Amino acid sequence: MMRASFEERGTEAATEATAEEVSAYAARVRSLVEATLDELIPAETVEPSSVHAAIRWSLFAPAKRLRPVLVFAAGEAFGARAESLIRTACAFELIHTYSLVHDDLPAMDDDELRRGRPTCHVRFGEAAAILAGDALQALAFQTIAEDETLDPSLRVRLISELARAAGTPEGMVAGQARDLEAEAREGVGGEELELIHRRKTGALIAASARAGALVSGASSSELEAVARYALELGLLFQITDDLLDVTASAEDLGKTPGKDARARKATYPALYGLEAARERARLVYERARAALDAVGRPTPMLRALARLVLERRA
Amino acid sequence: MMRASFEERGTEAATEATAEEVSAYAARVRSLVEATLDELIPAETVEPSSVHAAIRWSLFAPAKRLRPVLVFAAGEAFGARAESLIRTACAFELIHTYSLVHDDLPAMDDDELRRGRPTCHVRFGEAAAILAGDALQALAFQTIAEDETLDPSLRVRLISELARAAGTPEGMVAGQARDLEAEAREGVGGEELELIHRRKTGALIAASARAGALVSGASSSELEAVARYALELGLLFQITDDLLDVTASAEDLGKTPGKDARARKATYPALYGLEAARERARLVYERARAALDAVGRPTPMLRALARLVLERRA
Repeated sequence: MMRASFEERGTEAATEATAEEVSAYAARVRSLVEATLDELIPAETVEPSSVHAAIRWSLFAPAKRLRPVLVFAAGEAFGARAESLIRTACAFELIHTYSLVHDDLPAMDDDELRRGRPTCHVRFGEAAAILAGDALQALAFQTIAEDETLDPSLRVRLISELARAAGTPEGMVAGQARDLEAEAREGVGGEELELIHRRKTGALIAASARAGALVSGASSSELEAVARYALELGLLFQITDDLLDVTASAEDLGKTPGKDARARKATYPALYGLEAARERARLVYERARAALDAVGRPTPMLRALARLVLERRA
Repeated sequence: MMRASFEERGTEAATEATAEEVSAYAARVRSLVEATLDELIPAETVEPSSVHAAIRWSLFAPAKRLRPVLVFAAGEAFGARAESLIRTACAFELIHTYSLVHDDLPAMDDDELRRGRPTCHVRFGEAAAILAGDALQALAFQTIAEDETLDPSLRVRLISELARAAGTPEGMVAGQARDLEAEAREGVGGEELELIHRRKTGALIAASARAGALVSGASSSELEAVARYALELGLLFQITDDLLDVTASAEDLGKTPGKDARARKATYPALYGLEAARERARLVYERARAALDAVGRPTPMLRALARLVLERRA
């Protein structure tokens, strides 16, 4: 059942999946991705078991798999088939997981709880966590390079986009570095905060939606529209993350809440106050939906995903 | 001037470059690679400067560039042109440098001196060193993915081989993990030591020679012969590394000598004694040369490189 009808929204392109539909869709992607990751990652019984156990601990913790879901939702909106999307979806999850493992290290954000479990270095030691993250990154690129369902020219394009989104100066590593630099001083403004988040989480989220569209053979204007949507979605995700850090429990989050405030970290609630931060989330949500209007075809799952992120409680 | 003549070696295929020739060759590759890396890496003035400064500190320290030299020597032996080899050569150096930065971290080998300089984390802090290593790895794969001189199908093959050589269970990360696991217990034997080194340094060194041959379009039997050579060369490099840790000065090495013995680490001299370790180096050197005999065409630089590694003093 689609939530919106022509009468309500004016155009078929604005059709949105229901909350139940998008939840079922995400669950299907999660189960497909987790089964494929299980095949891609060496078993714990394979030496060196320390690294494979650490990888599996972090990768198979309960997780939303937002980036794989975006790869699928964007790809399937333009007609790509699941078997052509699955490895790319896994690659984004591998990169995301490596970044969590490294970001949680004592020298970085020093977190002890992640995805509802002790963090990788708490459980396996710092050396194993560093190596697990390093291996996850290599495996991400290998997974796309060896995807026999895709033309090699598409594979190199995907690898290039993933590497740029993961690295520096425009990607995730750059965002994390800027975040750490900002923590070391006072007076981070709203514009800088947004720039940090656009790199730290936005770049990979935007790239995952672009990657899905790329696999489907979408036109460059369609790619641009989807990427704009995903960049807003990434920002929305970050604002709601900041809000949840203030309002949610550790049990709901699967990580330690209240950490930002204790670290006097620049966040949306800290910068604007709780109500204005919520208002900002709503505004960014509207921008994400507006970006989809430019796609020119129905994107019911992408629309529903934006609402899901806006209204998430964990 | 070639050292060997027909009379001395019996076949043209056994021709070997002189020490001067191979030194000049390596110097040419080094300067080409360093100039290209300088173009590939964002300037220190580009934000986040902490990461770019840390990357440049580690990457542009004086170094032998053994892996790029192998890419070139193997590639040019089979007729590849420099412009088709240069990005692949840089990618191997980027992976190698990321591994040095991460291996030197306090939680890993805890080293303070590398390539004649304070290690990356000593100079820039642990967080910047972790991020610099992560960014270097992403950049390595990006560099091959965006190599317009190579057919996309060749690029994905190179990325797959590089990722496997860098990761787990057969590659560098697996070797480093096994090495750390072995340090934690007594009684590492010769076979296990060799297995560790084949992964920790051998896999990437072998892959660099294979990559050069791949770019040149060498046959699969030629690829195999070159890979066998390079695997022995990697092992030779490790044995001479162990020997130099006992016999060389910090000034010559650019890193702290005597560390292995203090850490009671399993090494070739510790396991076999100094003389038997030297004998082993000579044996592995002969195996490397024998592997080249199977190539069936002159490989004067590859032969001379093996001798250079056997006789190296730093």
